[in-house]
Amino acid sequence: MVTVEQAEELILNNAGDYGAEIILFNESLGRVLAETIKADRDLPPFNRVSMDGIAIKFADFEQGIKTFKIIGIQAAGDAPVNATQPGECVEIMTGAALPGAVDTVIRYEDLEISDGKATLQIGDIKKGQNIHFRGADRREGDIVLTPGRVITPAVISMVASVGETELRVKRKPRVVIVSSGDELVDVAAKPSPYQIRRSNNYMVKAVLAGLGIDAAMVHIPDEPEAIKSTLQQCLVNFDVLLLSGGISMGKFDYIPQVLKDLQFEQIFHKVQQRPGKPFWFGKHENGVVVFAFPGNPVATFMCTQRYFIPWLNKTLGAESKPAVYAALNEDIAFEPALQYFLQVKLSFGDDGRLFATPVEGNGSGDFANLADTDAFMELPLNKNEFKKGEVYRVWMFNQQ
Amino acid sequence: MVTVEQAEELILNNAGDYGAEIILFNESLGRVLAETIKADRDLPPFNRVSMDGIAIKFADFEQGIKTFKIIGIQAAGDAPVNATQPGECVEIMTGAALPGAVDTVIRYEDLEISDGKATLQIGDIKKGQNIHFRGADRREGDIVLTPGRVITPAVISMVASVGETELRVKRKPRVVIVSSGDELVDVAAKPSPYQIRRSNNYMVKAVLAGLGIDAAMVHIPDEPEAIKSTLQQCLVNFDVLLLSGGISMGKFDYIPQVLKDLQFEQIFHKVQQRPGKPFWFGKHENGVVVFAFPGNPVATFMCTQRYFIPWLNKTLGAESKPAVYAALNEDIAFEPALQYFLQVKLSFGDDGRLFATPVEGNGSGDFANLADTDAFMELPLNKNEFKKGEVYRVWMFNQQ
Repeated sequence: MVTVEQAEELILNNAGDYGAEIILFNESLGRVLAETIKADRDLPPFNRVSMDGIAIKFADFEQGIKTFKIIGIQAAGDAPVNATQPGECVEIMTGAALPGAVDTVIRYEDLEISDGKATLQIGDIKKGQNIHFRGADRREGDIVLTPGRVITPAVISMVASVGETELRVKRKPRVVIVSSGDELVDVAAKPSPYQIRRSNNYMVKAVLAGLGIDAAMVHIPDEPEAIKSTLQQCLVNFDVLLLSGGISMGKFDYIPQVLKDLQFEQIFHKVQQRPGKPFWFGKHENGVVVFAFPGNPVATFMCTQRYFIPWLNKTLGAESKPAVYAALNEDIAFEPALQYFLQVKLSFGDDGRLFATPVEGNGSGDFANLADTDAFMELPLNKNEFKKGEVYRVWMFNQQ
Repeated sequence: MVTVEQAEELILNNAGDYGAEIILFNESLGRVLAETIKADRDLPPFNRVSMDGIAIKFADFEQGIKTFKIIGIQAAGDAPVNATQPGECVEIMTGAALPGAVDTVIRYEDLEISDGKATLQIGDIKKGQNIHFRGADRREGDIVLTPGRVITPAVISMVASVGETELRVKRKPRVVIVSSGDELVDVAAKPSPYQIRRSNNYMVKAVLAGLGIDAAMVHIPDEPEAIKSTLQQCLVNFDVLLLSGGISMGKFDYIPQVLKDLQFEQIFHKVQQRPGKPFWFGKHENGVVVFAFPGNPVATFMCTQRYFIPWLNKTLGAESKPAVYAALNEDIAFEPALQYFLQVKLSFGDDGRLFATPVEGNGSGDFANLADTDAFMELPLNKNEFKKGEVYRVWMFNQQ
């Protein structure tokens, strides 16, 4: 039996790398960038007017000129209209490139315009105002994005602005979700009084869908030969096997033995935690990784969040997310010498504090309350009593 | 000009309702439930064994029996094997339905088994241990999910377990993103020295994709007739028009006038905020809603997060998300009488506090830093100086 920290370390030491692929930039949301993106021009590429109004020479204003002759109008996208003579101005629009002869922009709200002339209505003007200067944000050739960047809408905007129509992103692993257990029937089926419906596989598939992974699903019966032939096929067609069930002490828990027969190396079996103690993790010599989670829904969900997602992020080279901490909102006691992952609902106090309120059911088999929670709180192993106000790390779920 | 609060109220008062549709439960991630889901049987549906081991009568243990004769083995999914005589037990697996004659489960770890007999290795046994009792989580007919529920992986698991293969969910609005401005060229094009590439539309499309909305895109030139004919078509084919640009004081900002010509009612124009002051909001008599955001990328992004997403959530009847507050991590000063939305990067202290560190660029036109932030902090209107440690509301982005 390993500790949670040991399990995490062993899992991260077995992160994979499935290479990279080129995709369209506008289909890259959520992917992990596998190249460096540079600015192809200065950002902004010119002295960009940021208010509608007129552009003047500040020296004119300093010399007491208050009324300017409008010698032309310049829309965004137009070539610059120069106003070179004293007292001249250009009527100019947001987004336009500031002409070289002028240096200051006065917005319409601060002007009165009539007979082709604009008169200042304010006396407080700063040189260079309402201009977003060329290269103020980035210089041509500057690195704007680096490998490992998770692609968000703002990243897509940046990529578009520098003209990258295609992006090199990390390739995702091919994942199959393997459910097991003869007591499980299909969702559409009518279970016998001693059966229940399969649900873990759909839950894990949804978690992975939220991560952009379209996982396959397969169900195996509690029968060693059938398990063996199915897993053998999976070994050929997938990079990751996510199993749920069949790995405890039960007489019909054949999976660990079958995995060994198939030349998977067991990296660990059992973690000092609740839920999820029977968790089995291993790897095949061909590189295929197996996460075999216990069959109870809360354990499967918790292990997916706590172990699979960090493995995936490391595998994709994604920038790591900062740890989140919350204050326990109720006293909790927990006896066994296991790391306890408490189901909690998070809330933000208006003092900026994050609170975690336990939403506990009837032990790890209960998933009826799981839908009401949004994180697991990882309580330390070396304590049995946890007081309201104490702060511990929480693992927020990927909800979509 | 309206305040941020007034703008929000006016927008939410114009939330729509696009009805409901039936979809497969396993394709419902992120959708909003439009029906009540009840448990079709007790959860668990039987007294469910939660450890592998043996099932005994507690009365036998109380009478001093330590060694039990194994009279049968029962896997999960099997019909119950009864052990009615004193000193009898059933070898039983996790997930099995507890037979009526027994009431307590001892796990393998606490047993020694040989010659068809199981001998207890521990003296501390509680009646009913290692059993998840029928109906402990939910009773048949209990409501497990209500309309407005956003469908998460845990919700999908719950829906599967009660056998709902199809779900009634809220129908999403049809959205078109309309970019405008003659200075904008396509991402693949080579911009002239006075042009820039379109990026706002892709950014907004990505935000909407993360919300499960596949928005259409169209670009209009700064030309009143072209604007009119395009918007007229949009009016027929879409429920929501998200415009970016063309609504300021500029000579070529024809959009507000065209919208009026098309019989859109202006509900407000201009909000006392930075960025995003020129924001125009209105509605057509046929119900089509227009969010016309200013063209600068940060303003478009902020207004999408702060106004469109709450409108969408109300429109879909989604349960509201709790407000999030964070402590400002630096002093900030802001002069104008506008509500300032500060770009911030969030971090969690190990004391459970959420901190917001300003990541500011060069005013609202700068989006080069937007990709490095994960929220806007909404600073109050009635102050100019904001001190480190002060706590204000933040709007975390939908990042995927």
